[in-house]
Amino acid sequence: MTYQPGGRALPCFTAAVPAFLNGDDTPRAFLERCLEVLDAREATVRAFVCLDADAARQAADDATDRYKRNQLLSPLDGCPIGIKDIIETKDFPTQMGSPIFKDWQGRRDAACVQALRAGGAVILGKTVTTEFAFGVPGPTRNPYGETRTPGGSSSGSAAAVGSGMLPLALGSQTGGSVLRPASYCANVGFKPSHGALNLGGVHPISPSHDHLGTMAGTLEDAWAAAHFISVAAGGTGDRPCFPGDGTLPEAKLPERLIRLDTVGWAEVDRATKAAFEKHVATLEAAGVKILDKGSDDGIAALETMLTEVEQFGWDVTAYEARWPFLGYRETGQLSDFIASRLDRITGMSPDDFHSAVAKRDALRHRANSLAELADGYITLAASGAAPKGLEETGSRKFLLPWSIVGGPAYSLPLMAVDGMPLGVQLMGFHGRDTDLTAVARWMMQP
Amino acid sequence: MTYQPGGRALPCFTAAVPAFLNGDDTPRAFLERCLEVLDAREATVRAFVCLDADAARQAADDATDRYKRNQLLSPLDGCPIGIKDIIETKDFPTQMGSPIFKDWQGRRDAACVQALRAGGAVILGKTVTTEFAFGVPGPTRNPYGETRTPGGSSSGSAAAVGSGMLPLALGSQTGGSVLRPASYCANVGFKPSHGALNLGGVHPISPSHDHLGTMAGTLEDAWAAAHFISVAAGGTGDRPCFPGDGTLPEAKLPERLIRLDTVGWAEVDRATKAAFEKHVATLEAAGVKILDKGSDDGIAALETMLTEVEQFGWDVTAYEARWPFLGYRETGQLSDFIASRLDRITGMSPDDFHSAVAKRDALRHRANSLAELADGYITLAASGAAPKGLEETGSRKFLLPWSIVGGPAYSLPLMAVDGMPLGVQLMGFHGRDTDLTAVARWMMQP
Repeated sequence: MTYQPGGRALPCFTAAVPAFLNGDDTPRAFLERCLEVLDAREATVRAFVCLDADAARQAADDATDRYKRNQLLSPLDGCPIGIKDIIETKDFPTQMGSPIFKDWQGRRDAACVQALRAGGAVILGKTVTTEFAFGVPGPTRNPYGETRTPGGSSSGSAAAVGSGMLPLALGSQTGGSVLRPASYCANVGFKPSHGALNLGGVHPISPSHDHLGTMAGTLEDAWAAAHFISVAAGGTGDRPCFPGDGTLPEAKLPERLIRLDTVGWAEVDRATKAAFEKHVATLEAAGVKILDKGSDDGIAALETMLTEVEQFGWDVTAYEARWPFLGYRETGQLSDFIASRLDRITGMSPDDFHSAVAKRDALRHRANSLAELADGYITLAASGAAPKGLEETGSRKFLLPWSIVGGPAYSLPLMAVDGMPLGVQLMGFHGRDTDLTAVARWMMQP
Repeated sequence: MTYQPGGRALPCFTAAVPAFLNGDDTPRAFLERCLEVLDAREATVRAFVCLDADAARQAADDATDRYKRNQLLSPLDGCPIGIKDIIETKDFPTQMGSPIFKDWQGRRDAACVQALRAGGAVILGKTVTTEFAFGVPGPTRNPYGETRTPGGSSSGSAAAVGSGMLPLALGSQTGGSVLRPASYCANVGFKPSHGALNLGGVHPISPSHDHLGTMAGTLEDAWAAAHFISVAAGGTGDRPCFPGDGTLPEAKLPERLIRLDTVGWAEVDRATKAAFEKHVATLEAAGVKILDKGSDDGIAALETMLTEVEQFGWDVTAYEARWPFLGYRETGQLSDFIASRLDRITGMSPDDFHSAVAKRDALRHRANSLAELADGYITLAASGAAPKGLEETGSRKFLLPWSIVGGPAYSLPLMAVDGMPLGVQLMGFHGRDTDLTAVARWMMQP
């Protein structure tokens, strides 16, 4: 069912672990296979800002030794990983896709990177981000169609994973920045519940909407990485971490899923609509009852609230982004694109902000209150396949709702349109990431 | 009633504003008076890591022009201020009191600094912090007794304010780092409710206990600065900001105050006890009913919970400090002092952490549930006057409770022991910072 370029599956790290343990394979050999793809494709795809293959080889050799001694540091010991370039690393500059941070070097790893590194993960390099994950795109191309955007803002992470250079990369999402590029590049993109993953050392846009996310070739790796970060780095403040040991929860056939249109549906073309309807029909044929705004007043009320999410949701985001972006604007090196987004807050008072927050909180309450009705929500993970051109990263209309709601959400690479990958977005209830992952696993079964 | 060295009052910025407006005084002249004290005392007190008097003079001249044109940017326009050196500044290095960050330069102002600078405040320089606000002390001396500690971790801020070099400085508190040095150096120290002031760009220790605070020669300035940051930079996430325009709330005679002993009382010497009892008697004579653990079962239960706060409170803090401190430990440049604190978390599981969080949350609930009983709490702001020697920054036993509770708290310079200043700690209910400030104003009245 999964979209696979040329029928070739993307690499899965966790599936290779048994072979590492019995000596049939090694983390070093796994890395070399990744580097082979990277060598073949990076000149075109341009997923990385910087990388260090030699350091990665050394780290992979160290991991190889640990597998020989059966002394693993974590389930991700030896896993090659790419880090979005708004996430601090002590060994690479963190340049934020902005001239303001050209060659800037932090002196620590972000919380997620510190945890992964301590767990033996192989930090291969930094992946291209749009400017501060908020503004103008970088040079990255879509690995499935080089004239097309990979999506953004986690552009390089999505492209590296989608081309098979890496099994796993980190991204972040405030509006749609994990799930949109995941959809365009055939990643499994996972945005855990807001607050579930520690954002220390990740450049902020809007603390009440910023999420860390994982992007992988497989559901197994996306979940394993999110689970590990949740346990080893914690969440924001004192949130509980994900239960279990990081292996996928058992697949669960959902009894009911709520289908949301959102304002995105109006901009969807015929082929994309057809692909989604076909997927919904497959779900129904498997025994899932699909609810929609016609089934229940609560769902209808949610859809109505979502028609305004671009107003109140982005008012909250833009107001919270006063710091640090109003400071950056004074340097004259911020793009007009971001500067114009900041214009939105000119004249906004604290009262205006809190009125937008109240609408946002009402939306959150409504979205979570439907947990008794269904196992989750589905909609498109993007308005269609990746658009042509590199100047724009695509519409976020389908992504903004769950970025603002803050519940967990997946983009699952289950559709294709126009020869390009397209994701189904599966969204859940806040804090119930494990339950949602069980449904995702069922949906990803062949 | 306020402790004043040699009977000389510390400078108050907000009280000078009318004279700026009518032309009798200017921000530049105000700054020069500060610099005069600084020139006389800094060689001994060593409050600053770095400063730029010329840039400050330019900023003060700019402010002077704005007063002439009556085009103020904020109530703090022209106010000289010192910034604790764990708070990022774009014009000064941020060195965290650690060799790991020697000469390290961020490319932005922290949220609080960005707001103050945009409001016209004059950022004079960076003030000495203990290592990461968590470890070994810096070189600062107590301005009231040069052989004594100024307290920590906001050592330089307290000493600069206490010696009259500045009307205002920023500090931070996770265990006792604003109110303890404020007590030792005759500052009004104010730690607003947890989450009330934006911590963006402030080096973290423990997100669920870290607070930004203001340290000033007067209650007016401490409140004005906290209020302005609350409005202009917001709080953590989407907290509401303080109401009003930043002028002090009207003084309120509290009907009842709860006197807490905490585990600190056991280490207090006779002279300090006598000073506190005398102050309590003054309050009673003025008509305040003082409650204690003998008056009410709820207060007794709170005191009992506080006997364990050093265990569960610091378990939460230390576990949250995994990032970034476990990473720093690998550099070999972390002090043994911090490294040994990190040992506490060896062997702590997520379950242990959440069990400590549950105790902490029960304490918070208990402390806030007594709001119906009284207008606030009082206790000592330190176990006594500043101890002799610069190797230790003093006991935090009286400060830890409200750091962990997260309610607002003041240290008010209302006592003296052994010829040294000593603060009364006034603590309030979470989110009721304005109410507490009204009581503080009453307590500070001559």
